[in-house]
Formats: sequence, C-alpha cells, structure tokens
Amino acid sequence: MNRKMVFNTLGRMSLVCAACLMLPAIVSLIYGEHKSMQAFVVVSAGAAALGFLLLLIFRSKNQVIYAKEGFAIAALSWIGISAIGAVPFVISGAIPNYVNAFFETVSGFTTTGASILTDVESLPHGMLFWRSFTHWLGGMGVIVLVMAIVRNVSDRSIHLMRAEMPGPVIGKLLPKARDTAKILYYIYIALTLTEVAFLWAGDMNLFEAFVHTFGTAGTGGFSVKNASIGAYGTYSQVVITVFMLMFGLNFNLYYLLLMRKFKTVLKSSEMRLYLSLFFVSACIITWNISSMYESIGGAVKDSAFAVSSIITTTGYTTTDMNSWPVLSKSILLVLMCIGSCAGSTAGGLKVSRVILIFKQILREIKHMLHPRSVSAIKFEEKDVDEATLKSTSIYLACYVLCLLTAFLLISWERFGFESNLTATISCFNNIGPYFSPTETCYVNYSAFSKIVLSAMMMLGRLEIFPLIIGLSPATWKNK
Amino acid sequence: MNRKMVFNTLGRMSLVCAACLMLPAIVSLIYGEHKSMQAFVVVSAGAAALGFLLLLIFRSKNQVIYAKEGFAIAALSWIGISAIGAVPFVISGAIPNYVNAFFETVSGFTTTGASILTDVESLPHGMLFWRSFTHWLGGMGVIVLVMAIVRNVSDRSIHLMRAEMPGPVIGKLLPKARDTAKILYYIYIALTLTEVAFLWAGDMNLFEAFVHTFGTAGTGGFSVKNASIGAYGTYSQVVITVFMLMFGLNFNLYYLLLMRKFKTVLKSSEMRLYLSLFFVSACIITWNISSMYESIGGAVKDSAFAVSSIITTTGYTTTDMNSWPVLSKSILLVLMCIGSCAGSTAGGLKVSRVILIFKQILREIKHMLHPRSVSAIKFEEKDVDEATLKSTSIYLACYVLCLLTAFLLISWERFGFESNLTATISCFNNIGPYFSPTETCYVNYSAFSKIVLSAMMMLGRLEIFPLIIGLSPATWKNK
Repeated sequence: MNRKMVFNTLGRMSLVCAACLMLPAIVSLIYGEHKSMQAFVVVSAGAAALGFLLLLIFRSKNQVIYAKEGFAIAALSWIGISAIGAVPFVISGAIPNYVNAFFETVSGFTTTGASILTDVESLPHGMLFWRSFTHWLGGMGVIVLVMAIVRNVSDRSIHLMRAEMPGPVIGKLLPKARDTAKILYYIYIALTLTEVAFLWAGDMNLFEAFVHTFGTAGTGGFSVKNASIGAYGTYSQVVITVFMLMFGLNFNLYYLLLMRKFKTVLKSSEMRLYLSLFFVSACIITWNISSMYESIGGAVKDSAFAVSSIITTTGYTTTDMNSWPVLSKSILLVLMCIGSCAGSTAGGLKVSRVILIFKQILREIKHMLHPRSVSAIKFEEKDVDEATLKSTSIYLACYVLCLLTAFLLISWERFGFESNLTATISCFNNIGPYFSPTETCYVNYSAFSKIVLSAMMMLGRLEIFPLIIGLSPATWKNK
Repeated sequence: MNRKMVFNTLGRMSLVCAACLMLPAIVSLIYGEHKSMQAFVVVSAGAAALGFLLLLIFRSKNQVIYAKEGFAIAALSWIGISAIGAVPFVISGAIPNYVNAFFETVSGFTTTGASILTDVESLPHGMLFWRSFTHWLGGMGVIVLVMAIVRNVSDRSIHLMRAEMPGPVIGKLLPKARDTAKILYYIYIALTLTEVAFLWAGDMNLFEAFVHTFGTAGTGGFSVKNASIGAYGTYSQVVITVFMLMFGLNFNLYYLLLMRKFKTVLKSSEMRLYLSLFFVSACIITWNISSMYESIGGAVKDSAFAVSSIITTTGYTTTDMNSWPVLSKSILLVLMCIGSCAGSTAGGLKVSRVILIFKQILREIKHMLHPRSVSAIKFEEKDVDEATLKSTSIYLACYVLCLLTAFLLISWERFGFESNLTATISCFNNIGPYFSPTETCYVNYSAFSKIVLSAMMMLGRLEIFPLIIGLSPATWKNK
C-alpha cells in the first residue's frame, strides 16, 4: 500500500474542494448573504490548509497507483468531501444539525437528491447553489475532475477512474486516462451550458436555470422550490424531461457522435434498451394514471417526466407520485433498480449490467439443455470476457445483499414496510424520493438511519466494491 | 427429444396419482362423506384411465433420458398432477371455482400452503386430508416417488431427480438413482411417523396428527383449523417447531447419521448457518415482540415457532404476525427468501446457495485487490467447480428477475405495495402467509393474479429452470 501517494492525492482533492467552495461564496456575495459567504470562505480556507498540509507531509516519489490505492483514494475522498462539504450548512445555521447536513451533502455528491429539508425555499441562495453544485461535481465524479485538471497524474491512474466510474466495463476513450477525463468533462460542460440556455429561455431566472441544470446534469434532483419542477410551466418540464434522458446516456456515445461514428451510436444495444424501457414504461403509466387527469396531454407529460426522472435516478417531481396507483409505483420502483446507461451520471444497476445478466441467464439455459455447448457472450458487437461476466453477476448478488442489510438496519424505525424498503432502494440507487402511505421526508428518520442511508448512497454511487475495499483493514496493511 | 419416453413416464405418473387419490377416498369413506368419496373415486379412475392410455400409446424401447427429457417430464407432471388434483375439490363442491381449486392444489403440491379458503373448518375430512397429503407428496417430490416405486426406471434417471430436487448440487447417496430415491423416502416416512406419534400423544386426534404432520413434513402449512396451529396447546406448538426445523435439514445428513458419520454431520457448514440463522432471528424477534406479551415464555414460544415456520417455508402460524413490529416482519421477509437447506423439503434460495454466493463475493473482492490471485472455493470441505458457482450466481439473478416480473404482473390489483410484494415473495418461496396492512387472503386476488402466483409457486418449487426449459418450444423441437 502506497500510503504516501494516497494521502498526497487526497491533498490535491482537498485543494480542488477548496476551489469549488469559492463558487457558492461568490453566489452568496452577489445575493448579499454575508453569513453564508463567511461560512463558505472559512470552510474553503480550512480545506485549502488541509490540502497543503497533506501535500507537505506526504511527498511521494513513487507515483504508482494500483487497484488498492485507487479504491482507498475513492473511498476516503468521497467521505472526505462530504464531511467537509457539510460544514458550511452547519456554521451558517442553514442546517444546524451536523448529521442532517452530512446526509444532505452525501445526497448531493452522490447525486441522490434525498433531502432532510421540509422547506427548501427558506434557504439562502448560496446554500441552494452549493447543494445543487455538489450534484454537478458528483455526477461526473470528483476524482475524474481532479484527473482532468491536475497535471502530473500518473499513467496508471486508470485505476482511479475505474474506482469512480459506473458500469461493468470502463471504456477508455483515449490511451491516456487524463485525456479521457478531460473529454468527458468537455462534453459534460457543453451539455450543461446548453441546458442552462434552454431553461433560461423559459420561466426560470438564471440562478434557477443553473441550479436545476446541475440537478439534471448530475442526475441528482435537488430543487430550489418545495414543489420541485412542479413549480414551473410545461416548457421547463419538457426541457428537463429531455435533458434528464440525455444525461442518462453513456457519455461515450457523445464522443462517438463527435467522431461522426453515427452508425455505431445507433447500433448501441444499451441505448436502445434504455430508450425502450423509457417509452414502454411511460406508455403504461400514462394509461394507468389517465383517469386522474382531465386531458391525456397532462398524463403524458407527467408520466414521461416521472419515468425520465426515475430511470435516470434524478428524482425531480412534477406531481405527487405517491397518490398514483400501485401499478405505476411498482413500475417506477423496478426502474429505480435498473437505472440508466453505464458511463452516465446516473445510478442504479445500469442497463448494460441488466443486459449482461439477461444474456448469462439465456446462456445458462442453453448450457443446461446442451451441457457440452460453449458460447461467448457478445455486447455492443464485442465478445465479453468471462471475468467481466462473472463480476457482473456477483455485483448483482452484492447489490441484493447490501439492499437487504440496509433494509433490516432501518426496519426498527416506526415507519412502515413500504417506506423503509422504498427509502432504502431510493438511496442506494441514488434517486431521492421514496413511497410511503404517510409522510415522505427523510428528516423523520433517526440519526442512525440517516447514517445507514448515507452509507447506502455512497455504496450506490461508487458501486459497492471501491468503498468496501478502500476502507477494509486488509487494504491498508503494509507488507 | 425422446417424446415417447416423456409421455410414457407421464403415464406412470398418472397411475401413481390415481393410486394417491384413493387414500383420501378411504378417509372420506371412514367419515361417511359420500360426495367427497365419489369425487375422489371418479377422478382416480379418470387418472388411471389416462395413465393406461398414455402407456398404451407411447411405448418406447429407447429408455434414455437426457436433461431435456428430465425437464419436460418435471414441468408437465407438476402441471398435470395439479390440474388433476384440483378436480375433486370442484366436483364435490368444496371449492366450486376451478381457478381457486387449481391455486389451492398447486399451493399444496408445491408445499406453499397459500390458501384461498376463508373457512377451512367447513371442508369435509376427505378434502382436508387430500389438501394436506399433496404437501407430503410434493415435499419430497412426486417424481422421486415414482422413481422409488416403479421398477424399470433407466439408469440415466438422475436427470429426472435433478429436475425436481432443490439445491445447487444434487448428492447421489448411492450409485443408482432409484436406490437414492428409495432411501430418501424411507427417511421421510420414518420422520413422518415419528411426528404423527408425538402429535397424537398431545391434544390432536389421529386425523389432525396426520394432517399436520403432512404439512410439517412437506414444509407446506395447510391446517384444518382456521387459527392454524394457534388452535392447539403449547405442547403441539413446540413439537411442530422442532419438526419443521428437522424437515428443513438436508436429508443427506440423516443418511449420514444412519451411516454413523456423526463428525461429518456436525461439521456441515450449511446446517450450522441454518441453525444460527434460526437462533439469532428468534432472539431478535423475541426481544422485539416481548412488550406485546405478558410473559417472556410466550414471546419465546411464538417467535421460535414463527422463525422455524418461515425459514423452513412451512407457513404455519400460532399468532397474527401481521400485528408484529416492522423489524420482526422484515426479518421474517428476509428469511422467506433464504429458506432452508438444499436437499430438504423446503423452498427459498437455500442456505447453501447463500453460502456459495457469499464466498464468491469475498473471492471477487480478493480478486479486485490482487488481480492475479486464483483461488478455489470450498464448501463442506470439498472444492466447488466453477460451473456450479456460475450457475449459483445466475440462479440468483434469475430469482430476482422472476420475483420482479411477478410483482409487476400482480401490481395492477387494488391491494397495496406491501401485500403484492410479500404475496409474491411468499408464493415464490413456497411459504404461504403474506403481510398486509389490511386483509390477507389470496381469495381476494383476481383469477389472473392467482394463475401468476400459481406459476410462481411452481417456479419456486422446481427452482425456475426445469419449468422454463421443460415448457420452451426449443426443448420440444425434433431434430
């Protein structure tokens, strides 16, 4: 274990975190919110100091990063930025309780969008901006950001990316990990600015356009309105429906578009299944809820928005989905678990994993009928190696295990079965809202449950293994 | 596909079914229930005629059975006996609706114990006997029974056993499949008679002792009382708690006991985990429900009974578990999915599968840290081959897929989320009772949902693949 390199990288992370905290400070300044501004500046200064201290203490000549170091950096930096990012909420008094602030920040960075706030609109602009900005940072990944902007990152840093990027296979777009990270962020920024322009052209002001774009881009779901996107008109709702879907696509597809490889994009089986799932679910839900609406148009709009929001694990709402029939809620619950494409900013199991698992089931059936048959599984026109297939099915097992464990851990709460299960699924898949026959706000859960759910959000965002391996004592043993 | 051999075997199944139907006819005769007796005799005669017809038409010199034929026989015979077994209920007027009668019979043979009856006590003795006797037949397996009693079964008939016996690996106790089947039934009958004796010694009459033993032995759960085992005293409840646990053990262990291999039995990791799960769950639930009881003894008795009943997927009850706190219900729900040991009469994923999946997760973590490491997984002191490991994790994937599909299919019902999900889990794992904030009786579900749930019971009992493969057109194609 190259501890020096781990803490050295964490030092850099801390500096980037300090820089990021200056943005909400500027927003606070613009809106004349001095208390918030002070909070951000103080925490930013603290993070910068911590960063320099780490860089001073841990100078490493050996820049090699193996899988171990990658996992350790991912685990510690995600916990670290959440712990630091929660402080401004507490010292500004916006969220006085640290556990609540930590839950909210983890929910931000992991792009979950689960909130402990009952009245979002009472928060200062600076705080609202920071809350949503964590979505944007967490969406593409904080480590990927550091790789894109810090110059001397080692060539082995693909291990770092692997620990943070979702999906069964990480496509290196370019030979150097740093170039891949840069391109991903360029695409991310371009899409973000496009959405800001579209939203600003509608009924949102520039601040609202930015904040809701952050929430869409990171597939997070924090809003500045208590009614979420329901506070805006049809135009904004349609724009957000489309952009949520776009951010749920594998970013490699955008790169392929830039390379003018249109045919490869159209052939993508992951994209096809993802869009089919969206379309079929939206149709069924429209039919199911139509009796609750005066016009079919309203039902189409709300069901398309809900499906887009849930399958991309964003969690924005335009209406109270809790009052929908059980069929619609059940479909949404299954979509929560599936999630979007690998290599997107969304959570869930990922459509590509679902495809690989399906193909393995079919192969197993074929093998049971013809025990001597041997066949390779193809995905996106390439053979998938057996190690990837194996880890995909084991990932599913691990996913179920985590879900059941968390479900049991929070089941002593006074809430019912439906609340506990859907809250666990919602946090683990980084969605946000959950279903309950009674009230639905995470603030009602105990501090213990909030920590369990925060852990689930991180496990979901980092796809389980990096967090577990990064924190396990075996990883930290020096040979 | 050797169709002749498939239908020839189905003919034999039909004859065995006809013979089995004579038992409840005799019970009806004893209790002077002429209408019931007539129903059983008529259906028995019909099944016998069908059997002879099949044997006449499909004479096969080629007695070879491959995997294909095994699956086809398993799928068709389970559907066939359920379809035939439901008829006496309808023609005697006990359950006039055929879908209801079919649900009840599938629930019987698959040892689920889910009932559409609201007043069991109004049924004639013969019907009650038949209902419970299907548990006993389905527990060890109808095909295994045929193999044990019919003489000229081919040596390749291990494929038949494999299609019906639960668990990731089928242990052949003896070189010949037929001898293994015989020994399993000897052990089964011995344990059954022991339990009958114990129950008869208590507050049950001989009829009740037999019926409840059938329910325990097959881990089914049908009772002749509306209050289930709650209608009897503490002695009977304790006896049934212990016997349920015993029938949830791998029957190979009893064979090993007979062979005086005590050490091997004690070392069984599946048995150890199974009993630990029982013990830990019973302790937590006792603590959780203790405030609802006047004495700790009552809480211990009811929680031990409930855990034993649920982990063995029997489904007997002594009290209304629906009124228990969410924590207790959540633990029971997870136990429903785990189930008991492989090679027992119980349903669920099986403890051995859970162990193999756990070990694979740990190996995957090890592999992620040290990508070049290669290590075999041991279970019960033997190396497990990679094909078994692969099919175990794929089985889990298939299990989750079936569960979610059925959950979606019945989610258009007017019942809530909790009812639909727990009813699906309960039927799929062959338990019986489900949780609901309102009423809990399967009769309220629509005919469509009853058929979906019947299919889930069969999928659960046959462990998914035999039913799917046996019914798929690809299996039936003649080359």
